[in-house]
Amino acid sequence: VSGAGRADAEDMPEGDAPVGRSMADAEPAVVTFTGRDAMFNAHHAPVGAFASVTLGAPGAAGGVGMGLEGPAGADVLVGLEAADGTGFDVLPFFDAQADDRARFDAALVGAGVDEPPLRAVDARAITREFGVSRDTWHAGDLTFSLFSPTGPVPDPDRHPADEVAAAVLPAVLAELIVDNTGGSRPRRAFLGYVGPAPDAAMAVSAEPVGATAGFVGVGQGRTTALVSDTPGVRPGVGFSVDTILADAESGAGLGRIGLLWIEVPSRERRTVRFAFCFHRAGPVTTGVDANFWYTRYFPTMRSVCVAALTGADRLRRAWAGDAARIVPPHLPAARRFQLAHAVRSYVGCTELLDDGTPRWIVNEGEYRMINTLDLAVDHVFFELSHSPWMVRNVLDAFADRYSYVDDLHHPDGRRVPGGLAFTHDMGVANAFAPPGRSAYERPGLRGCFSFMAHEELLNWILCGVLYLADTGDEEWRDRRASLFAAALDSLVRRDDPDPSRRTGVMGWDGGRTGEGWEITTYDSLDPALGRARGSTYLAVKTWAAYVCLAPVLAAAGDPARSAEARAQARRCAATVVAAAGPDGVLPAVLDDPAVPGYVVPAIEGLVYPWYAGEYAAVDPQGEYGELIRVLRRHVDAILVPGRCLFPDGGWRLSSGSGNSWLSTIYLAQFVAERVLRRVPQDADRLADEAHGRWLRDPRNVRWAFSDQIVDGVAAGSRYYPRGVTAFLWRELP
Amino acid sequence: VSGAGRADAEDMPEGDAPVGRSMADAEPAVVTFTGRDAMFNAHHAPVGAFASVTLGAPGAAGGVGMGLEGPAGADVLVGLEAADGTGFDVLPFFDAQADDRARFDAALVGAGVDEPPLRAVDARAITREFGVSRDTWHAGDLTFSLFSPTGPVPDPDRHPADEVAAAVLPAVLAELIVDNTGGSRPRRAFLGYVGPAPDAAMAVSAEPVGATAGFVGVGQGRTTALVSDTPGVRPGVGFSVDTILADAESGAGLGRIGLLWIEVPSRERRTVRFAFCFHRAGPVTTGVDANFWYTRYFPTMRSVCVAALTGADRLRRAWAGDAARIVPPHLPAARRFQLAHAVRSYVGCTELLDDGTPRWIVNEGEYRMINTLDLAVDHVFFELSHSPWMVRNVLDAFADRYSYVDDLHHPDGRRVPGGLAFTHDMGVANAFAPPGRSAYERPGLRGCFSFMAHEELLNWILCGVLYLADTGDEEWRDRRASLFAAALDSLVRRDDPDPSRRTGVMGWDGGRTGEGWEITTYDSLDPALGRARGSTYLAVKTWAAYVCLAPVLAAAGDPARSAEARAQARRCAATVVAAAGPDGVLPAVLDDPAVPGYVVPAIEGLVYPWYAGEYAAVDPQGEYGELIRVLRRHVDAILVPGRCLFPDGGWRLSSGSGNSWLSTIYLAQFVAERVLRRVPQDADRLADEAHGRWLRDPRNVRWAFSDQIVDGVAAGSRYYPRGVTAFLWRELP
Repeated sequence: VSGAGRADAEDMPEGDAPVGRSMADAEPAVVTFTGRDAMFNAHHAPVGAFASVTLGAPGAAGGVGMGLEGPAGADVLVGLEAADGTGFDVLPFFDAQADDRARFDAALVGAGVDEPPLRAVDARAITREFGVSRDTWHAGDLTFSLFSPTGPVPDPDRHPADEVAAAVLPAVLAELIVDNTGGSRPRRAFLGYVGPAPDAAMAVSAEPVGATAGFVGVGQGRTTALVSDTPGVRPGVGFSVDTILADAESGAGLGRIGLLWIEVPSRERRTVRFAFCFHRAGPVTTGVDANFWYTRYFPTMRSVCVAALTGADRLRRAWAGDAARIVPPHLPAARRFQLAHAVRSYVGCTELLDDGTPRWIVNEGEYRMINTLDLAVDHVFFELSHSPWMVRNVLDAFADRYSYVDDLHHPDGRRVPGGLAFTHDMGVANAFAPPGRSAYERPGLRGCFSFMAHEELLNWILCGVLYLADTGDEEWRDRRASLFAAALDSLVRRDDPDPSRRTGVMGWDGGRTGEGWEITTYDSLDPALGRARGSTYLAVKTWAAYVCLAPVLAAAGDPARSAEARAQARRCAATVVAAAGPDGVLPAVLDDPAVPGYVVPAIEGLVYPWYAGEYAAVDPQGEYGELIRVLRRHVDAILVPGRCLFPDGGWRLSSGSGNSWLSTIYLAQFVAERVLRRVPQDADRLADEAHGRWLRDPRNVRWAFSDQIVDGVAAGSRYYPRGVTAFLWRELP
Repeated sequence: VSGAGRADAEDMPEGDAPVGRSMADAEPAVVTFTGRDAMFNAHHAPVGAFASVTLGAPGAAGGVGMGLEGPAGADVLVGLEAADGTGFDVLPFFDAQADDRARFDAALVGAGVDEPPLRAVDARAITREFGVSRDTWHAGDLTFSLFSPTGPVPDPDRHPADEVAAAVLPAVLAELIVDNTGGSRPRRAFLGYVGPAPDAAMAVSAEPVGATAGFVGVGQGRTTALVSDTPGVRPGVGFSVDTILADAESGAGLGRIGLLWIEVPSRERRTVRFAFCFHRAGPVTTGVDANFWYTRYFPTMRSVCVAALTGADRLRRAWAGDAARIVPPHLPAARRFQLAHAVRSYVGCTELLDDGTPRWIVNEGEYRMINTLDLAVDHVFFELSHSPWMVRNVLDAFADRYSYVDDLHHPDGRRVPGGLAFTHDMGVANAFAPPGRSAYERPGLRGCFSFMAHEELLNWILCGVLYLADTGDEEWRDRRASLFAAALDSLVRRDDPDPSRRTGVMGWDGGRTGEGWEITTYDSLDPALGRARGSTYLAVKTWAAYVCLAPVLAAAGDPARSAEARAQARRCAATVVAAAGPDGVLPAVLDDPAVPGYVVPAIEGLVYPWYAGEYAAVDPQGEYGELIRVLRRHVDAILVPGRCLFPDGGWRLSSGSGNSWLSTIYLAQFVAERVLRRVPQDADRLADEAHGRWLRDPRNVRWAFSDQIVDGVAAGSRYYPRGVTAFLWRELP
């Protein structure tokens, strides 16, 4: 396995890493971990089902969940009978079982369980191969893999149903390989889970498929199931693994554990195929009534199970192919790990709904806000690479239901009419907000939960121009031309309604903030990044929006506005350049150098002209060369110990805050290396490894990919989709 | 309020209890509690929706739940602004709120909340009026009531849709009365809840109803909602009560609290009407695909809300009328309390499904097994009183899908063909078991989870004969005549296939037990009651089945089997009588007097002939007079201190066990007082009060009505429906 394990040489076994099976569907760029370093949760999720098999952290920290704000927190049981028959060695993804039988039998209260215990395999005996579509655990004679898709969905409006159906099949695949070739007795192996839904029992099913085959399954209610079509696999539900294995006849049963198991004869090796399946029929949302899109193709859980098992080989090949396109083998292992981890978490947050037309959603991790627009602008690079219609779909939904026109107020108290704005999000956790409203924003605030009118306006513009640059979709450009015009007009008014007072940066707050002021996406990070007005971060992003709008407006036949955009870009660049101190460093807040702090996201905005192909705009010798050179000096000056580096070498986004966000670190890394042409040094490789360690810190591993890391601890934005900015690394040499 | 509070004189306020409003819908026989004694959870549940607003215990111990095995464990917020505006006095049904905002704003981690706290009203300031359809809390200027139905449902196959719809409307009503007539400033009052479902957000809705009216609501996902049509009520969702009240404009929002609130002007008194509504569309079960029956009439949550609010006055009158028929004012208060409590818990466990025809279910409390047949035989008295079709419906479902034919095995190892048997249950928690299988029963056991073939056969027979006695439904009798015949044949074979060896009692175990043996419903109580074969309890119940079968078989035109039934009844009675010791006491196990213990349930079986109108069979001077006299001597001898009385005066079901079950205590009390004509003494009144105190013990109050009380602690069978046996008390003079 090429390059495996470079991130974690200290934990690597001597010699070669365990080699994946030689299969057409093997994902090449997996990263190998052993021991404690291997014990982190990751998503294994279908696309668009807002569902996940989360697995990898010790204890009942993962599980099979739908629509949750974190892992289900329930056992997943993967085990193999010991060669000497004395018990079961089980991957350590479970907690010691309280004996649920005592609830039924008062005589058992306080009594121990007289069954052979499940022995958790020691982490030191586990080797994990981690990729974006394959995740494999080796432990003794047991090899367990989960296979899952990586994100692409063909445009449902333009592609055949079978292609779309395959992409949104709400299932992930699993495989158990038991090597009993050295065994002198039959050994039982199992895969199972504890259903976390509070309102349904685990149950067994055995279903015929076609005339000659069949599958067996266990599931909870009508929403989750684990099925297999490998001959010899038997299902059971019960209070414990032991009672299930002892009671093969039972078709139903009490107890929270659902298990599929098989007996592997001595001297044999068996590969068992499984699928974890999800299904929710009928409307699942409020505010807007929508079903899961997949129910168009898969009306029942049974149809999901059949499609997953019968299509398993084809799906695994397709997913491995997609994986190879996402994670290039030449990336350092620490980056391959973070990229794969981030893509998984993103996929687990995706949801494709059907309210007559497809409605693409990325839920905001633990917060579950719908299509938070300041995340959408980070997902855009990944989505455009494989499914640009997703970006268009979100932009249209914001345009049609989640835009509004506000008024503006100035710090001096004046109020004037404003212009086009977009909400922060479209609601939360399947509850769509009313038109023109978000779940997040509230009036009267100057920090978290305030409005982001200016920033979300930028985000809509930037997503739009990148979509156009990527697709050349002139039909959409012309359809949205008036909105682009209104967006420019609004952006200019938010600078100042009086042309003579314009600086290119935001000068007025949206009126919905009332006595408060607007914030940026960095609301919770640091005062140096939180306030929108005067923010250097937002100023450079505003410049980027003007730069990118100019050619779009021109192409749409609006040369006047195109020229105005360019003029604003110049003003904005000049304002930012003028703020640079004698040391070449930009203040965090342009109009208040007294606000302390050096901020990495000052360079973030450079990604957009670059991605839009406006290379001249980011050329240090070009029209905005002075701005580019200032930003290069800025980042060179702050990415030093004592400023924007943590003691472990990881990046601080703001020198005054211990709160750093991996998603925007990745973005800034890309800008620094690709746009500003900083050649990576040893310190940069150390930073990558520090960032990777943050995610594998035992304090953080429950949450799969987390974004907000405060002094090494995942303190917010956990279970989060935003890290797919790492996909930009693919563009690095 | 007549007779209020006799159960708890020590906690009663001096003088008259607070008087309920003079309304047509006032339930007369409420019982009044104050202080700690008032702080117990009770169900407030629609009929047939498997849903409950559970409320009354301190802390986040109740809540709005659907399909759960216990209370949701989430806040219900009922509060009134203090007269001096310094904060809110809130009924103590919530926990101190962790500040959920800290998840969004890392700067808040560990920070306190700078809002006026919610002050929990001290229990000593609360007076509660508790009835079967009304539950009212008085605290200062606030009066809060919940109104809920008591169980009747017209036969869906035979009654107009509107009558059935009204009976199964999945909603309960609430009312908040704020007395601000003495107030000098406006005061805000609110009702709200924290949604416990893990996969959906709380959201606000405002819906027009008809042309001129409307309602506002908060709800979680598509499944629960709280709505009001009282003018001036406003909805909000947020992290805290304070933020919701401060942010009246917001239509959507983050946070787990959904709240409806109103401002009551000074010098005014306001009554605010609410409905808690439930809805789940589409199939909700596995094994058998079924929808909630109510979705036939109420396809959406909105339709539930409209029906609940527009029908509120009529519903409250109907429920109060039903309540008056259930709880007679002449019962001692301790019994009125237990009866009302038990009926509420039963209602919360009910579920009416639709798989083409109506399917009536009582879920088994915290175990959620579907229509456990040894509970059905206890619910039968209550169900026959108002909706006998429910009994027929369950009997038919057992006959058609959950019956089987087994073989039998003798303790000496012989095996022979057996006969008709019924499963213990039909599955668990909306997962229907395969035909002929239960969720509970497993082979090879001699205690909990073994089979109950003999007992469930008796239970089917007894439910059937009581249904026929109550309804005279000859069509059903003739349709099931062959099943009654098969039941008799099977019962006789389970005595002994060899006529010459028959004793009238069970001699053979069902073959499905394998190496084990059959158990009784008292599986978890005591060895003296747990084993089926030889059980004195089961012998008397077997006698009852024979006694009741004889006239049914005769009427069905089967005089031979009728005579056989009568002959078996005589044999059985003789066997039991012969086992009585010289002290007039029956052993717990007929064939093994060495098993220690005196068991109250020996008399249980007498209820069936009495209820079936076979009064001669229970006449101490009649055909079975010797058995009746033996049973009277038995109960007189054991209901004494040191045998079947706890130190607090409560009844032990078995002298050897601290585990006593309220449902069968109630049944035995009825048999003792009505069938065996024991005139209640002071000790019996003390027993009633002890039993009531068990349910209000702070260790037990979370679970609403619990059945298995082990030395005063609810150790199993919590949140349980079975206590409706107390309905038999209505027949006491």
